[in-house]
Amino acid sequence: METWSLTKSGYDPSAFAADGNRFLSANGYMGVRGTVEEADKTQFPAITLAGVYDQYQDKWREPVNAPNCLFAQLSMNGQALTLSDLSKSEHSVSIDYRHGIYQRDTDFGPVRLKSQRFASLDRCHLLLDRLSIEVKEDGELEILTGVFCDLWDINGPHLFDQSFEQGKAISCRARTGEKGIVVAAAQCAKADFEYAERFVHIKDGLGRILKSKVRKGDSLTLDIFASVYTSLDGAEPVQAAKEECLQAHARGFESCLKAHCDAWESVWARSEIKMEGDPAAQLAIHASQYHLNCVAPRHADNMSIPARGLSGQTYKGAIFWDSEMFFFPMFVYTQPEIAKSLLRYRTETLGGALVKAREYGYRGAYYAWESQEGGKEGCTNFNVVDVFTHRPVRTYFRDKQIHISGDIAYALRSYYEITGDRTLLEEGGAEVILECARFYLSRANCRLDADEVDYDDVIGPDEYHERVSNNAFTNQMIRYCMESALKLRDIFNDRLEWFDALLERLRFMEDWRLLEKTCKRIRQMRRREGVIEQFDGYFDLEDCSLADVRARLVDPREYWGGDHGVAGTTQIIKQADVIAMMALFPESFDDGEVAKNWAYYEPRTEHGSSLSACMYALTACRVGRLDEAWELFMRTATIDIEGGGKEWAGEIYIGGTHPASNGGAWMIAALGFAGLRLQNGRLELHPHLPRQLTRLVIPISFRGQKQIIEVSPDGAVIRNA
Amino acid sequence: METWSLTKSGYDPSAFAADGNRFLSANGYMGVRGTVEEADKTQFPAITLAGVYDQYQDKWREPVNAPNCLFAQLSMNGQALTLSDLSKSEHSVSIDYRHGIYQRDTDFGPVRLKSQRFASLDRCHLLLDRLSIEVKEDGELEILTGVFCDLWDINGPHLFDQSFEQGKAISCRARTGEKGIVVAAAQCAKADFEYAERFVHIKDGLGRILKSKVRKGDSLTLDIFASVYTSLDGAEPVQAAKEECLQAHARGFESCLKAHCDAWESVWARSEIKMEGDPAAQLAIHASQYHLNCVAPRHADNMSIPARGLSGQTYKGAIFWDSEMFFFPMFVYTQPEIAKSLLRYRTETLGGALVKAREYGYRGAYYAWESQEGGKEGCTNFNVVDVFTHRPVRTYFRDKQIHISGDIAYALRSYYEITGDRTLLEEGGAEVILECARFYLSRANCRLDADEVDYDDVIGPDEYHERVSNNAFTNQMIRYCMESALKLRDIFNDRLEWFDALLERLRFMEDWRLLEKTCKRIRQMRRREGVIEQFDGYFDLEDCSLADVRARLVDPREYWGGDHGVAGTTQIIKQADVIAMMALFPESFDDGEVAKNWAYYEPRTEHGSSLSACMYALTACRVGRLDEAWELFMRTATIDIEGGGKEWAGEIYIGGTHPASNGGAWMIAALGFAGLRLQNGRLELHPHLPRQLTRLVIPISFRGQKQIIEVSPDGAVIRNA
Repeated sequence: METWSLTKSGYDPSAFAADGNRFLSANGYMGVRGTVEEADKTQFPAITLAGVYDQYQDKWREPVNAPNCLFAQLSMNGQALTLSDLSKSEHSVSIDYRHGIYQRDTDFGPVRLKSQRFASLDRCHLLLDRLSIEVKEDGELEILTGVFCDLWDINGPHLFDQSFEQGKAISCRARTGEKGIVVAAAQCAKADFEYAERFVHIKDGLGRILKSKVRKGDSLTLDIFASVYTSLDGAEPVQAAKEECLQAHARGFESCLKAHCDAWESVWARSEIKMEGDPAAQLAIHASQYHLNCVAPRHADNMSIPARGLSGQTYKGAIFWDSEMFFFPMFVYTQPEIAKSLLRYRTETLGGALVKAREYGYRGAYYAWESQEGGKEGCTNFNVVDVFTHRPVRTYFRDKQIHISGDIAYALRSYYEITGDRTLLEEGGAEVILECARFYLSRANCRLDADEVDYDDVIGPDEYHERVSNNAFTNQMIRYCMESALKLRDIFNDRLEWFDALLERLRFMEDWRLLEKTCKRIRQMRRREGVIEQFDGYFDLEDCSLADVRARLVDPREYWGGDHGVAGTTQIIKQADVIAMMALFPESFDDGEVAKNWAYYEPRTEHGSSLSACMYALTACRVGRLDEAWELFMRTATIDIEGGGKEWAGEIYIGGTHPASNGGAWMIAALGFAGLRLQNGRLELHPHLPRQLTRLVIPISFRGQKQIIEVSPDGAVIRNA
Repeated sequence: METWSLTKSGYDPSAFAADGNRFLSANGYMGVRGTVEEADKTQFPAITLAGVYDQYQDKWREPVNAPNCLFAQLSMNGQALTLSDLSKSEHSVSIDYRHGIYQRDTDFGPVRLKSQRFASLDRCHLLLDRLSIEVKEDGELEILTGVFCDLWDINGPHLFDQSFEQGKAISCRARTGEKGIVVAAAQCAKADFEYAERFVHIKDGLGRILKSKVRKGDSLTLDIFASVYTSLDGAEPVQAAKEECLQAHARGFESCLKAHCDAWESVWARSEIKMEGDPAAQLAIHASQYHLNCVAPRHADNMSIPARGLSGQTYKGAIFWDSEMFFFPMFVYTQPEIAKSLLRYRTETLGGALVKAREYGYRGAYYAWESQEGGKEGCTNFNVVDVFTHRPVRTYFRDKQIHISGDIAYALRSYYEITGDRTLLEEGGAEVILECARFYLSRANCRLDADEVDYDDVIGPDEYHERVSNNAFTNQMIRYCMESALKLRDIFNDRLEWFDALLERLRFMEDWRLLEKTCKRIRQMRRREGVIEQFDGYFDLEDCSLADVRARLVDPREYWGGDHGVAGTTQIIKQADVIAMMALFPESFDDGEVAKNWAYYEPRTEHGSSLSACMYALTACRVGRLDEAWELFMRTATIDIEGGGKEWAGEIYIGGTHPASNGGAWMIAALGFAGLRLQNGRLELHPHLPRQLTRLVIPISFRGQKQIIEVSPDGAVIRNA
């Protein structure tokens, strides 16, 4: 069984959206959806740019799709060759996870077309596509390619004032509507056959048509070199894009391909998990690691990863807590410079978090729930559309999901503890932790007649229950954030002068004293027979089954959450919440507690988020539920193979790849199966190898030292690499 | 124009529900809906009992309807005479507001039937009906009457184990399902004509059929004497009911009628408002005062009045803040013993309020939003049914409408100030005020880093906006409640030993000190250009018109409130909120402020509650908007003439009479048009007589002294009566 690639045969219009995600190629700067070269808008093609946002009218802000510079349409004797004419057996697409190469193989009848397409991992602005054409009938072949702005956008259009230039490289210059960011794309082509060329203005773009008389048995190759730059990358994006693709043209396809593959090899050398004993699992973990690695911001040191990666504009291309909770662990243990970039995005967007806290009447740093450039809050007050009235529904994710600040502080502290690298704390990280703690001081709810500090009116990880009090996860995160702020003094005990100056600069002295008192006063979790109550009053909610709740749906696309949703007034939860806390703070709960809470909450969890299964799998390992852990691992790790997951929230399309599940798969393998845990400054293994595996190998990096974890049924070891 | 009665001609099946309310006769113990004697369930007849509740299965608890002991069906020559055979002109019904007598006049063809029916005001268990029959054709007349348990119930059935006894009086004994309360009804009849009698068991009851040969020109009279008792009234309710109706039988109809009318005359002598210059207004205020007077608990000293009076089972027959805010003013100024009864209901149900506060984790007294016997909370977590999914919707009236406790404290203080009677405070009222203040101490939200005390997560009078912070009305009520608690020490400065013992018994010493500090710290109202913000963030909500919001409805019966409703995310409010505060605390705001707030809020108010128009009218008088005040007065005062008001909240029927509007009409006349205000212990008049009126006369009672207010275009005076 093939463990490094995924192939799908046949032409399947019902899966255009899903396949675009499944066969994604990306390099952190941009993602190219896995659609065929000639795809039109109905097939949802896109080249989605990381970190470039635009708002059109009053629609949601979302990432910008670049001009389509990889478009190619073949015609034979004046007849366009399209997939819709084909029967199933004559078309297949695949993704090579090892090198991130999208391939197609289509027998159109008169010609057979194969392609090899990738977003170059070594040069982030570069896109390549090699078209290999096998001629099966004599005739006149035309290939239309170029740069086109007739794009699929969810909340677009975004590209205005388009202008095009022809030449050896075709180039396009456009400007986003909101901020006037210049987006440039260029493309040139190299053919190994004779052709006549003419330029055409079509599809909101500029194309060239290569016309060639071909004969049965001919093999033709056309290499397309394309490039995308924006004015955020430098002053002359058009020029840069042209130069980039012309230089690649000069180097040639093979040379570019080799550099790209080498880059991938070095990524895999640092991160590849080997799972022996079950090829499907090996494929799944390859797929997961591929999808997470391919969206990592390798070209920048201060960027993070959107919740749907670079697979499109879903979720506004925003940065969620997924970054710190689900992407971060694999990176911090395999490629810490990427983990650092994710967190530097947070330290550099502290300003946005300070503004958001002030907007709600608080002090300190309240990070955006859906963070866009500069930490700008992309989350609106209305995130769901009611399926019955088609009216937007007020949700409270933006206002109430306050655990986000603590999640960031948690990752900042972890980064320091795992890498031993204090520079991130010095360069803004300590300030972020302090400002997050300050936010929680200011957000605390006290009573006149009680000592405890409450956190009322919040949303925990389980978003179906809005506006609850004392969510256990949230309170725990807050407590840890406050403790981490106080811990900074120990971390900097050799630089106390610097640290005290920082406190002074932040006018933090009074808050420091308040922190010391408050972190002990936060309301303790309530328990019933060892089960922690998810929030105040959760146990009083209707205790019915998932099937009961599902049966109450009148429309399958209904939103489950909030007071109006079928789950909101019951104990059915969207995703791991108490269990997520137990997964993140393993040392705070003993095995018996975890077992009881797992048994209570798992049957009540819809797993309606890709953030859920992983947390349950991690804790399932710990309590010896290995078959369940395995099932959850496979569900998590195959999500971007299957193309599963929820595609709708009310009337809003939310499909895409699932980097959180991708990261979750790594977490289950490393933190669950291998049982990797950092305790008192040392790595420990508490292995729980599922019976399906005979050997598990995980490369990691710990405090600058490359190490290898090996787990077999006989035991587990960590050794230096 | 007739100013003492309302007549409706014709047969109108579309108005069965509304007419049952319009033509209600009641005496505080029970209400007899204004349906014809022969009405079956489809016409919604009911004899609804005050303060007797029952729950069937898991449906809402609601008041119990007594067995129908006023049923009477005529037949001629074996043919039942029914309204559905009639053309419009041959039927009319009327209500005589002066004496609370329902009358019908139906020409069935063979006979013409008139009736005079009333719930006796001097003997609360007694119901009478005189049937006068004019024979127009020879034939054989049969009259079926008796006691029947085939009842209309909204959330029933409620009567079980029914047994019937025949004799001179027919009697029925039944038992409620939940608590086994015995409900007994009896009936006897007196005819001035010859008849043969037989008994029949039909319609879940026992009837007697009087058969008589009649001749054209005959005039027959049948008097029905009926009575209802329950085991809450005494040990032998069946016996008591039989005796009651037999004694009435012995006294005779005329004698009973006279005693009843005399009782009404004395009510009117104490309360009748005279409005000269506009007969329609005179009729409207008569109707309003009738509908409120007829549901007053004259037979008890510790009962209150349900929000829909005794017109049926709507709103669970529960006691709302309507009692203190809208019923109380007319009674305290005209019949203070009834005002006292309303409030004694609260002092005697303090236990329920203490329990409710504890249930939510607070101390002190948190009164039920929908109070049933013993202060039991009748409000559930689900008060609306979604029209699209038919699922119940979580509402927060029960949890968050905390102003209720302050409303009660406000009325307790007013009772003392207006009547000068301190006994109510001594006999529990002071304790209630203290416990309400204690509740607010315990419910206060503080911050670690701010001095102000917030009241977060509340609902103000405007129920469309749930879970808001610092509702201006609520904060003002809380502040006043705390001040009133502290004020008790002055009120009892001649009995300090008693008062201190009370504090001691309530272990209130520490809370007293906390009260002194806290009442000054409650968050001040925010203002924008003089307009008080209804709650934190209200001004940030979408500012659209009532018409805009209405146009968004997909179904006319949709519930407007909550995050899901069309109004919830806009500035459109259900009812007076800031303006209600200004109406209740006139001395705290100057005319300019009231004018600005009126101009801002009125166009944004749906008036979707019968509690709204009155508050706007009162304040409109003050700011000289007399035409608007007049329009709002007429809308308020005619509501139970028109039979208007909302009949649906989602899928829940909420029709009935509107005692709050009835009380509101009195308030507009007395507190608005006459401008009656108690200031520094003295009554003042600030008259604003609308141009429609030439003279306004209002009898009141102030500190035991009967007085008459007279307002004319020339001025206003108060004189002793």
